[in-house]
Amino acid sequence: MLLADLSTPALILDLDRVERNCERMIRRAKALGVRLRPHLKTAKSAEVARLATREGSAGITVSTLAEVEYFARAGFDDITYAVGIAGGKLAPLADLQQRYGVRLNLLADSVEAIADVAARAEALDARFAMFIEVDCGGGRGGVLADGLELLPIARAIQSSAMLSLAGVLTHAGQSYDAVSVEAIREVAERERAAVTQAAERLRAAGIEVSCVSVGSTPTATHAASLTGVTEMRPGVYTLCDLAQVSLGSCTLDDIAVSVLASVIGHNPRSRRMLIDAGALALSKDLSARRLGPNVGYGLVCPMNGGRPIDGLYLAEVNQEHGLVAGGELYDGMVAEYPVGTRLRILPNHACLTAAPYDRYYLVRGEDACVLGVWPKATGW
Amino acid sequence: MLLADLSTPALILDLDRVERNCERMIRRAKALGVRLRPHLKTAKSAEVARLATREGSAGITVSTLAEVEYFARAGFDDITYAVGIAGGKLAPLADLQQRYGVRLNLLADSVEAIADVAARAEALDARFAMFIEVDCGGGRGGVLADGLELLPIARAIQSSAMLSLAGVLTHAGQSYDAVSVEAIREVAERERAAVTQAAERLRAAGIEVSCVSVGSTPTATHAASLTGVTEMRPGVYTLCDLAQVSLGSCTLDDIAVSVLASVIGHNPRSRRMLIDAGALALSKDLSARRLGPNVGYGLVCPMNGGRPIDGLYLAEVNQEHGLVAGGELYDGMVAEYPVGTRLRILPNHACLTAAPYDRYYLVRGEDACVLGVWPKATGW
Repeated sequence: MLLADLSTPALILDLDRVERNCERMIRRAKALGVRLRPHLKTAKSAEVARLATREGSAGITVSTLAEVEYFARAGFDDITYAVGIAGGKLAPLADLQQRYGVRLNLLADSVEAIADVAARAEALDARFAMFIEVDCGGGRGGVLADGLELLPIARAIQSSAMLSLAGVLTHAGQSYDAVSVEAIREVAERERAAVTQAAERLRAAGIEVSCVSVGSTPTATHAASLTGVTEMRPGVYTLCDLAQVSLGSCTLDDIAVSVLASVIGHNPRSRRMLIDAGALALSKDLSARRLGPNVGYGLVCPMNGGRPIDGLYLAEVNQEHGLVAGGELYDGMVAEYPVGTRLRILPNHACLTAAPYDRYYLVRGEDACVLGVWPKATGW
Repeated sequence: MLLADLSTPALILDLDRVERNCERMIRRAKALGVRLRPHLKTAKSAEVARLATREGSAGITVSTLAEVEYFARAGFDDITYAVGIAGGKLAPLADLQQRYGVRLNLLADSVEAIADVAARAEALDARFAMFIEVDCGGGRGGVLADGLELLPIARAIQSSAMLSLAGVLTHAGQSYDAVSVEAIREVAERERAAVTQAAERLRAAGIEVSCVSVGSTPTATHAASLTGVTEMRPGVYTLCDLAQVSLGSCTLDDIAVSVLASVIGHNPRSRRMLIDAGALALSKDLSARRLGPNVGYGLVCPMNGGRPIDGLYLAEVNQEHGLVAGGELYDGMVAEYPVGTRLRILPNHACLTAAPYDRYYLVRGEDACVLGVWPKATGW
């Protein structure tokens, strides 16, 4: 099968790049002296998970029940479900745990949530390992490392026969707002400091903390030190995207995922070339804006990959339509890219772009052959 | 089953509202003297399609190959695939046409595209009905009604033994940018004028034009007249959303689709309540901004539906996290909505929100019971 034979839009995965990205982060984790527990919310693929964990990873991280089930079924037996747990998810999780023999690590950041989990775990006769989520400045989930809630939460976990304390965990989401590598490094240090401080406070109170977990691709890439940390959970590094390029976490040549699209028209009034990849095929994410004014919803490459075509970008998206702008290049585009031409769009945010597709079509480098198909998880 | 039993996030469909929305547009089409060919790219559900077509609709409209297959399998036998056709899709379309005996109406807006479709149709021994797409000012697909390309495209269709001219078709996408009902009415008149002018020019050249098709929910709702038009193809009216409320196409009480989410935490530093519905569960669409500064990515209702809770809105979304803001209400929110509380989020853009879910959970009004499940199409 050739790229030219695929129905569009289609999600393309460059194996050379995903392998290289996975190997680089394995080396990086070794250099930092931490285990790598890759976040598979980005790739949602057992094959990518195997590439990302092949040198003795401690397990994987996911963010939906559908991913827990998909990866448990694929044989992954140590899974951190890294979204604050709501009680309603415990029955299906207990069921998956029993069916697949998987160790499930859950997150909570309040005594109330722990009490609810403990009561439900007892009713379900299920055991869960609990991470205490720490807020290292992102303002999303978690308690402060030096706050009043930390010890009571740990004690609430200890007081349940069904729960064990997995450790402390944080995510420096604010690294995505950092304006320089230096700023990301500062965020990484804050991430490290918060979670190690939380671990030390617990240990000082006689509570054993085996896992001290951080994670985001920008901080994993740029952290100067992870002293005191035991694992990291980056995810988007597996595929990379334009937002990560804008953050200095990777280069354009590392982006392993793209959307194959077909040219479906040209509009001389709006000076737009139309493709069949729009808001659903790529998402409405604009997080690569920092790369410059002419990035829009993605950059445009030839069908066989390679570097983006100078001057072209996806300026607008409707549900299934994408509108490519090229400024003064428009007149040439009509002849150069007639209806039916295939192009590859590099996404702004790989996690959101890849999510709705049920499979990857595999290529290597700029070869026109489709080497195979990898299924992937979708939905919740 | 109760709403309280569902795993979150889950897509909820209020049958009272979707039935009422469908009936209203059926009446509206009758009043305007046109057939209704509802666009099912929004609901992607055979059951919704049956509600929308039950008074003698001329067929349906879709925007992906997956929708063509899903609806053909469900027995719909007259389907307009309303995205400019790329040649690569003809083989799978011919296959679906043969398997299900469905009439397929395709779109093109250039002689080159028609030549490609004709050659492929001949090679596939398949017949297709072709719409000529007209650009009524949206600057997306289509030729100008008074442009040079119109007649040559019609003649190219006529010159192929495998193609027939279905008619002329336009979509007033610019109605979404109109700032008042009066402005939408002007766009609707421009939509009508463009496509009827194209039809008249073809007829004056001796070319039969049976179908003259317009379509968008705002223009279908507000058009003063559709004289000369034979069908309309609105879609989002089936479900409605906050963007349509902002355009005056519906009221809050018409929004039939929402996302059931669970509270998973509270963060006193950022004064945010966290829910398990984020960028994937709701999309990053911000097209309801016109409703006011405090809409964000959606409004927040109680689990059992009803009106939005005053002052709450989804201020930020990450992949699987939503962050609800409530300003000065935050302190009360912690006690009022403890972890595990279920809420319903009204979406900005129903098409993008509903797309990734594989099913609707059905409710009626503010009843807590789930009355059933309707599967739906996803992907491409």
